[in-house]
Amino acid sequence: MSDDTSMKAKPFGPIPAGYEAQHGQLVIGGLTAEELATKAGDTPVFVYSRAHLTARVAALRAAMPDRLAIHYAMKGNPFPPLLTFMNDLVDGFDLASGGEMALALAAGVAADRMSFAGPGKRDRELEAAITQGVTINLESEGEAARAISIADRLGIRPKLAVRVNPSFDLKGSGMKMGGGAKQFGVDAERVPALVKHIIAAGADWRGFHIYAGSQALNAEAIIEMQAATLALVSELTAIIGTAPPHVNLGGGYGIPYFAGDAPLDICAVGAALGKALDSLPEDMAETEYNIELGRYLVGEAGVYLTRVVDRKVSHGETFLITDGGLHHQLAASGNFGTVIRRNYPIAIASRFDAGAEEVVSVTGCLCTPLDMLGNQVHLPRADVGDLIAIFCAGAYGASASPANFLGQGAAEEILV
Amino acid sequence: MSDDTSMKAKPFGPIPAGYEAQHGQLVIGGLTAEELATKAGDTPVFVYSRAHLTARVAALRAAMPDRLAIHYAMKGNPFPPLLTFMNDLVDGFDLASGGEMALALAAGVAADRMSFAGPGKRDRELEAAITQGVTINLESEGEAARAISIADRLGIRPKLAVRVNPSFDLKGSGMKMGGGAKQFGVDAERVPALVKHIIAAGADWRGFHIYAGSQALNAEAIIEMQAATLALVSELTAIIGTAPPHVNLGGGYGIPYFAGDAPLDICAVGAALGKALDSLPEDMAETEYNIELGRYLVGEAGVYLTRVVDRKVSHGETFLITDGGLHHQLAASGNFGTVIRRNYPIAIASRFDAGAEEVVSVTGCLCTPLDMLGNQVHLPRADVGDLIAIFCAGAYGASASPANFLGQGAAEEILV
Repeated sequence: MSDDTSMKAKPFGPIPAGYEAQHGQLVIGGLTAEELATKAGDTPVFVYSRAHLTARVAALRAAMPDRLAIHYAMKGNPFPPLLTFMNDLVDGFDLASGGEMALALAAGVAADRMSFAGPGKRDRELEAAITQGVTINLESEGEAARAISIADRLGIRPKLAVRVNPSFDLKGSGMKMGGGAKQFGVDAERVPALVKHIIAAGADWRGFHIYAGSQALNAEAIIEMQAATLALVSELTAIIGTAPPHVNLGGGYGIPYFAGDAPLDICAVGAALGKALDSLPEDMAETEYNIELGRYLVGEAGVYLTRVVDRKVSHGETFLITDGGLHHQLAASGNFGTVIRRNYPIAIASRFDAGAEEVVSVTGCLCTPLDMLGNQVHLPRADVGDLIAIFCAGAYGASASPANFLGQGAAEEILV
Repeated sequence: MSDDTSMKAKPFGPIPAGYEAQHGQLVIGGLTAEELATKAGDTPVFVYSRAHLTARVAALRAAMPDRLAIHYAMKGNPFPPLLTFMNDLVDGFDLASGGEMALALAAGVAADRMSFAGPGKRDRELEAAITQGVTINLESEGEAARAISIADRLGIRPKLAVRVNPSFDLKGSGMKMGGGAKQFGVDAERVPALVKHIIAAGADWRGFHIYAGSQALNAEAIIEMQAATLALVSELTAIIGTAPPHVNLGGGYGIPYFAGDAPLDICAVGAALGKALDSLPEDMAETEYNIELGRYLVGEAGVYLTRVVDRKVSHGETFLITDGGLHHQLAASGNFGTVIRRNYPIAIASRFDAGAEEVVSVTGCLCTPLDMLGNQVHLPRADVGDLIAIFCAGAYGASASPANFLGQGAAEEILV
């Protein structure tokens, strides 16, 4: 390896803790990368680790206040065996569609543990939620009217919470969902009137859902957002005159994807939230609180394994062409809401303990220049047949990518 | 409408020619938007127009030289009834995977009209192509070795062309696929040796595939690229000493998506290409030439219809929330390889002849701020139940979007 070569390299994100080598290969759940590919029957494959999921939820519970419930936002990863596994680990499920509700029910999640948020709920989705007894986080006055009307027709008392569009956002968030005009929730100043209307209509008012942003790594920003959320709940409670039975404080807990990213300090977040909950005004002391996390719970528990199909040189640069690509890993390819493409954590899974020897670009098999998995990364030597690992593949991978693009089809998925 | 309101509006792309109103509604194939939704059985729905496809191919043939074959790059839209329809209109099909080959065969396309390009072809895809008699556009020396070895094992003479990585690119192209180090094709200087090897190995050498970029609207840029492509073929032919039986000149013909875009002047392109083909050196005069187009043939023939599920106001801005979204229209949402989001052409399909009255944002039903279909667009008044049309939806829509994201599932598709 010459200095010249390694200097051309672009950085990639940190490989999450808990991934080690045995017999030279990346091992997950006691199986080597090759054994995982064999078990899955084909590559590419998303491998999700039960041990990683369990450890992640345990560490989070240890850091968070005891009274805080932890919900899984299943939009992060709706793989059915993973849903069933998460059902035993968390206190509730957050859904974003009738399709997710059907998946969760099929995975054995009880409807009374579910809440359903999302703009654009159709009448048939509202009807299914009301019939099942799922809590609906209302996104507008219009949706409230439709839900109440459908419940009346069904003769069922609906469980209705109100999603509040807060006037603040989550600083440093990858995805702002509050602060200004938004399609989500009801502007805070109109919320008291809506809650009173819901109660007057005889519905079971379940409280508030306040989600200000996602994917933040700065503990101070999350602490500030959670404090602002509790202050907003306090203001709303004072105006309404009735404490909410339940408050969903949203999420926002990020994971490191890129070079220079550091893990979120959940101990700092948990300590601050514990103090905040302990010092709530009396009328909010009986309220139940939860956070809702998708990516934070499952993102680092997943690894995408894809096999090298070709190794080629063009104008002095080496390319490893794989059997995977952006059709499974849209975000990792840098094409999903990204301004500047950066490399996700990447490794040669079949030579996981080898030293970096060369700078290569790892591309997918699609006939488009967008299909880049690792741009000029410094890796051990790999040849046709080797397995590449892309980390942080547990959330927004398989279900958030255009699987049928260019006739490719879905990847395998296994939980080990 | 106040000036204040309309001044806040952001522009959107031009609605393609051929879409008109009847009874106040957008009409496609003689059916109103509501009739199309009924015919499809649900919304959202992609509607593809036979009349538009037919007219587009006819206009292109009129503009292009008679001897130029027109191939359909099915990656643009692999909807089976559309493939069958296109099969009668074009002279060949270009595939990007074994999955596309299976779709084309099922749609009735003859294998000898197909060619297959794409890095990362697996052995089983090469085997299927060789067995069927599909021309393989080889992307590397390694792929050539694998193809020849598989053909030997099968006892079949393979049809092999070489994809050349040209040293030039398509200026103003939305997607550069030549010029510098690329995962596509073989660097031009190594091509003669590879062709000689293929011929010596006893394969049926089919010629060249040279694809320098896509989605250009500037005729001069395409004329220059085609001239450079023919010059490159001439150089390669001189070195190899044998003229290629066939040359695929690639594509690059773009369509207008955004405000300020003007249609490509295909008459200028065709006239220049006609002269270039007429003045070829004698040894290249017998060669067959084709262009390969996906988006240009089918993009404007498709319209995405999605129904308004909610109408709401947040901080003074109006949002129309639809039952569709980026899970069907990733590119239109601005999240597929886009740096700055701009609005695709959009209209209220159920009030297609009404004047613009208000500035609204049209969002999808997904619980993510990325799901934006029309950002602050100036449109006629629309309410819950109205249908929105997004144009230029015929290419890279249904098949290039993450249909299962947030549990949503695929849109309907109809050909009328």
